[in-house]
Amino acid sequence: MSTNDILGLIAGALTSISFLPQVIKTWRSGSARDLSLSMFGIFSLGVTLWLIYGLMVNSIPIIAANTLTLALCLVILYFKLKFK
Amino acid sequence: MSTNDILGLIAGALTSISFLPQVIKTWRSGSARDLSLSMFGIFSLGVTLWLIYGLMVNSIPIIAANTLTLALCLVILYFKLKFK
Repeated sequence: MSTNDILGLIAGALTSISFLPQVIKTWRSGSARDLSLSMFGIFSLGVTLWLIYGLMVNSIPIIAANTLTLALCLVILYFKLKFK
Repeated sequence: MSTNDILGLIAGALTSISFLPQVIKTWRSGSARDLSLSMFGIFSLGVTLWLIYGLMVNSIPIIAANTLTLALCLVILYFKLKFK
């Protein structure tokens, strides 16, 4: 595995896992007023396309990272709609 | 340009531009209480690594998408710290 591959994997892990603290914070506070529905909606759509892209080019890291990101974003979207 | 390339470009455009509505919403409301500092901090770090990755592999789409995303995330982080 090249240095670039490792860099990409760390980058992907960070951008995916970053949504977890938002899920935890929103779940605990029960408040999602300041979250932009458009942001999480458009982001989820983009991540879904990244996931399809990963399936088309058969890239396990892209599929894995985007599946995790999408799952966390859908939870945030659910909270946003529920707590609105 | 292949169908996969176009799919990747649309996905990248959506995930980058999605942060704009959050910037606008937070700027207008002056409230960032519900935003997770950890989320935007870790995400910005990850996007910075993606940007370095793009520079290493000389990929203009990766560089462009992540520069825009990073700029928008840094604005959100600034708002989060300012409005705290």
